[in-house]
Amino acid sequence: MKKAAIIMGSDSDLKVMQGAMDTLKALDIPYAVRILSAHRTPDAAAAFAKTAQAEGFGVIIAAAGKAAHLAGAMAANTLLPVVGVPMKSSTLDGLDALLSTVQMPSGMPVATVAIDGAVNAALLAAQIIALSDAPLMSRLADYRAAQTRKVEEKDLRIAEEYSNL
Amino acid sequence: MKKAAIIMGSDSDLKVMQGAMDTLKALDIPYAVRILSAHRTPDAAAAFAKTAQAEGFGVIIAAAGKAAHLAGAMAANTLLPVVGVPMKSSTLDGLDALLSTVQMPSGMPVATVAIDGAVNAALLAAQIIALSDAPLMSRLADYRAAQTRKVEEKDLRIAEEYSNL
Amino acid sequence: MKKAAIIMGSDSDLKVMQGAMDTLKALDIPYAVRILSAHRTPDAAAAFAKTAQAEGFGVIIAAAGKAAHLAGAMAANTLLPVVGVPMKSSTLDGLDALLSTVQMPSGMPVATVAIDGAVNAALLAAQIIALSDAPLMSRLADYRAAQTRKVEEKDLRIAEEYSNL
Amino acid sequence: MKKAAIIMGSDSDLKVMQGAMDTLKALDIPYAVRILSAHRTPDAAAAFAKTAQAEGFGVIIAAAGKAAHLAGAMAANTLLPVVGVPMKSSTLDGLDALLSTVQMPSGMPVATVAIDGAVNAALLAAQIIALSDAPLMSRLADYRAAQTRKVEEKDLRIAEEYSNL
Amino acid sequence: MKKAAIIMGSDSDLKVMQGAMDTLKALDIPYAVRILSAHRTPDAAAAFAKTAQAEGFGVIIAAAGKAAHLAGAMAANTLLPVVGVPMKSSTLDGLDALLSTVQMPSGMPVATVAIDGAVNAALLAAQIIALSDAPLMSRLADYRAAQTRKVEEKDLRIAEEYSNL
Amino acid sequence: MKKAAIIMGSDSDLKVMQGAMDTLKALDIPYAVRILSAHRTPDAAAAFAKTAQAEGFGVIIAAAGKAAHLAGAMAANTLLPVVGVPMKSSTLDGLDALLSTVQMPSGMPVATVAIDGAVNAALLAAQIIALSDAPLMSRLADYRAAQTRKVEEKDLRIAEEYSNL
Amino acid sequence: MKKAAIIMGSDSDLKVMQGAMDTLKALDIPYAVRILSAHRTPDAAAAFAKTAQAEGFGVIIAAAGKAAHLAGAMAANTLLPVVGVPMKSSTLDGLDALLSTVQMPSGMPVATVAIDGAVNAALLAAQIIALSDAPLMSRLADYRAAQTRKVEEKDLRIAEEYSNL
Amino acid sequence: MKKAAIIMGSDSDLKVMQGAMDTLKALDIPYAVRILSAHRTPDAAAAFAKTAQAEGFGVIIAAAGKAAHLAGAMAANTLLPVVGVPMKSSTLDGLDALLSTVQMPSGMPVATVAIDGAVNAALLAAQIIALSDAPLMSRLADYRAAQTRKVEEKDLRIAEEYSNL
Repeated sequence: MKKAAIIMGSDSDLKVMQGAMDTLKALDIPYAVRILSAHRTPDAAAAFAKTAQAEGFGVIIAAAGKAAHLAGAMAANTLLPVVGVPMKSSTLDGLDALLSTVQMPSGMPVATVAIDGAVNAALLAAQIIALSDAPLMSRLADYRAAQTRKVEEKDLRIAEEYSNL
Repeated sequence: MKKAAIIMGSDSDLKVMQGAMDTLKALDIPYAVRILSAHRTPDAAAAFAKTAQAEGFGVIIAAAGKAAHLAGAMAANTLLPVVGVPMKSSTLDGLDALLSTVQMPSGMPVATVAIDGAVNAALLAAQIIALSDAPLMSRLADYRAAQTRKVEEKDLRIAEEYSNL
Repeated sequence: MKKAAIIMGSDSDLKVMQGAMDTLKALDIPYAVRILSAHRTPDAAAAFAKTAQAEGFGVIIAAAGKAAHLAGAMAANTLLPVVGVPMKSSTLDGLDALLSTVQMPSGMPVATVAIDGAVNAALLAAQIIALSDAPLMSRLADYRAAQTRKVEEKDLRIAEEYSNL
Repeated sequence: MKKAAIIMGSDSDLKVMQGAMDTLKALDIPYAVRILSAHRTPDAAAAFAKTAQAEGFGVIIAAAGKAAHLAGAMAANTLLPVVGVPMKSSTLDGLDALLSTVQMPSGMPVATVAIDGAVNAALLAAQIIALSDAPLMSRLADYRAAQTRKVEEKDLRIAEEYSNL
Repeated sequence: MKKAAIIMGSDSDLKVMQGAMDTLKALDIPYAVRILSAHRTPDAAAAFAKTAQAEGFGVIIAAAGKAAHLAGAMAANTLLPVVGVPMKSSTLDGLDALLSTVQMPSGMPVATVAIDGAVNAALLAAQIIALSDAPLMSRLADYRAAQTRKVEEKDLRIAEEYSNL
Repeated sequence: MKKAAIIMGSDSDLKVMQGAMDTLKALDIPYAVRILSAHRTPDAAAAFAKTAQAEGFGVIIAAAGKAAHLAGAMAANTLLPVVGVPMKSSTLDGLDALLSTVQMPSGMPVATVAIDGAVNAALLAAQIIALSDAPLMSRLADYRAAQTRKVEEKDLRIAEEYSNL
Repeated sequence: MKKAAIIMGSDSDLKVMQGAMDTLKALDIPYAVRILSAHRTPDAAAAFAKTAQAEGFGVIIAAAGKAAHLAGAMAANTLLPVVGVPMKSSTLDGLDALLSTVQMPSGMPVATVAIDGAVNAALLAAQIIALSDAPLMSRLADYRAAQTRKVEEKDLRIAEEYSNL
Repeated sequence: MKKAAIIMGSDSDLKVMQGAMDTLKALDIPYAVRILSAHRTPDAAAAFAKTAQAEGFGVIIAAAGKAAHLAGAMAANTLLPVVGVPMKSSTLDGLDALLSTVQMPSGMPVATVAIDGAVNAALLAAQIIALSDAPLMSRLADYRAAQTRKVEEKDLRIAEEYSNL
């Protein structure tokens, strides 16, 4: 089975990115976690991206804040799909990381999810891998059905409790 | 081979999205083009998304402007990866479409590319399909190598012409 | 009498939207409360909108955050006026929800109120229903008169206490 | 039948607001057009709002740019629903008008539509009036059906012409 | 001596606007404080503005948040200089109030100060009144000299304590 | 009579600032025009501000774009009221100049008007000078009355021509 | 050896700017710390800039918030490189300070670093001074190598602890 | 003498960056021009940065648009000062490039100038090199003096022509 990689620019991103790990685990997708920085360890970051496909990874999830170059640096060095997670930091509420991740120049796409969107990054990675992995597609369908049921149950309970007809 | 779908909210998006068609064609990926609106033809849009996987599509590219709900509406009705292209329109320079596309709630990812990023949407779709299609992966490698060479040739020519050493 | 519907994308919106419920109650307007998500329960959301007019609703208030598609999804499936409430969430201070709600394409209006503007959403719904409901119009006039008096009383007290003439 | 009012802060708004007039005309809704400024003719603006209900208006559409106070000034002086149209002007791309129109304080709602959203303002006014006007509701249904058909026809033609399967 | 007026849209603005009162008091400028709302008590607000000049006011300071129309409503009804203070509220960090206050249409200026800039509003009012009030101009000069000295003393102390030469 | 000063950071601002000159001329207020830059001629700019009061100026209007420091540099060197005009330039639509002009620190107010708000800057200057100049106050009243009449005439003509009742 | 200057507009900036002092100290670069305000002590600020080169400074680091003119005021009065640090303050999340610092007009550059980027300001100053100071360049290389090692160690530990392969 | 490098992500940046070349030429600073892309030719970009110091460069000027990673990629691979020029492109008016360039993480500074600020990038590079190059410092002083004179001459001419005293 194809593995996912979760790359972070800093260990301060671990708390938010735990959501991605939990989701991949729930879907039985193996994953590696790495701290690689486009700026502080650029060679290690590039090396990881260059060998990722050969090492059995199917998707790279890259999370970074501020002038978030990590996802772009991955994309520049691999043909695997790269999912970018812009991280909120202490100023500008994540807008800087969002624009730095999503506004990639023509030729080098990054599949960007919402600011701090760790769970969605994992789900997108799963949807990508599931294209050629029928059992995973089936687990994804279960995951989504459970998610739907949860909203439906809340709807029933809250409609009952709050409506005033 | 898995097909790609290019869905647009309006035929005014055709001009920009031609870049996606040209790129898919260059990579020999078959594609369908549809005008489906999350707001004006919501049933047709949902129906398309619900049957896309069964009809052999591997990725859905959805382009829309302003309060761009199309990619999200696709994502809500399929487990296929959905690539969102925020379109620039006459006000706010595309920021509205970008936020409407990328800031998806937990559970429903959209793989968002840059504003008007039609070429990158096609490349991302290709990278996703190529994960289980080795000949396409090889064509992608050629595409990228050609892109690299083009920059290298410009570099040589311009370094020669403009440097002042 | 026409009823109002208060639809939320998530039960985390209940706290803010309590302001809408309190206001409708104060004006003696019956209302239903539902948790319906444009993304997680799209079919239920569309079904609600399609039958709302027949079931005696006069206005639909739809509250959602981030890439807030709920109000638009309602508007796409009914001819009833839809009032959109953009919800502030953990990033971008509600700007994403505001643009996703208000920047609707031509043909599908959403009557958007302020970020977290639950009370105003209810008042707008009341003003709309009151157009053909004279007793409600009269209650609205009382409501507003009371609101005016409250400001006038504060003005008197504070002018007295704080002025330095 | 209830009339609509189209109020503009300046005659430079006429070109965009023609879209509202055309739409109201297509739906057979009578309308008055006025140039009233919250800043240059505040008394006339307030007077219009105060008497609008008595003069048979059902909705007031107010269009203004920059620090767009017109819709708010209408809302402050009537219990009729007020639809605000933020106008794009020469700087800030309409963001100033949008925030000035939509961010109304609790107690005084303005039903805000998209920047330059003249057509949607008229449709929203029509939906509001149609709540107690069955023939208009029927004309609105026809209008929307025609709009849907137009998208469907484009979809057929473009799917045929552009797909590459 | 000309008096200043401090007008607030809501008593929740009192805490920030205390800075304006303290500054006017320090400069021995008499002031009235009023709670007047462009939206909730529009007639009282307009009436205040229309009579302010006759009642001996020289400047009106108007503070409001969100779609902050108060300063504009004052300006529309007087020829006195109006100083606008945009107030930060719970969303958008004051940007809405700033644009609603400063982007006034041609013909109706509002002298806008920084978000929550209560002290500066009072100083600006003082500078305006002082143009024809030599003793006040002299008190202003003292105020500024004291302010300068305070920075100079901090500079001396901190240069000593923190430099590392 | 007190004079006004119109200071510009660059002669490229002349076209927009002509609106200020025309307005001052219409109100019979004498004015000086200067090109002074907070960055390119900082000593000349400071010298002008320091002597402006003694030379009979009553208000300084300062226009600059981008990181617009000119109004602040004037304010730092005089007790005269300083009116700041943020100029739109080739990027960011004037937002940079607006924030650089209006967000002054406590102690140093700049009376900021709208982006490119040259006419309003002149009117604000006139309102300030008129506080102690009754004939000018009377000319201002005439100016405003004419402005009101112009809107009223447009209202009459357009109501006639465009209404459809 | 060339010295660095750390200039702050207010002593409230000391806490963030301590990061710059610590970094310069770690690199053995002597530095002066001053509280100088472009607005409250403009003459002292200009005087400092004018004599800085003669007094042996090589770089001036200037930190200020809101309408942050300090770095620009330094740049206007010296030919030394000026590094600008935009400070986050209570509103607008530092965007005002960033634009006021970086958007300098042609002819007067400020080397701007990230909002609250005190450490980077010091490193940039060090890189500039090190161009003609080989031992400092060597200390910088050590500093960076240590920084790289720290990330590498975190990577090893976290890959071990968090991966799920 | 130390050389400057002007690196661009795309040859479409040449037109704006000509301003940097002209300025360096006017100051007699030799420069190399290269087209290197952080995304399309990442290895060539990193290689250039790693050898730049040894090849006699003193400063690297890096210009890129959108998710502008080029300056950061340079900074990550050299200890030379890197000057970043955010380029305006077809959407978002350069804000994306500005934030992607300036919001660098702690440890890796980029000296950012204004959007499209090519001339200032060259002047900043010159100021940096001039720290250890007295003749260049002298040429810079001449350059600035000429710039000052130009403003002074415009001031004289325009004060004469436009003032109305």
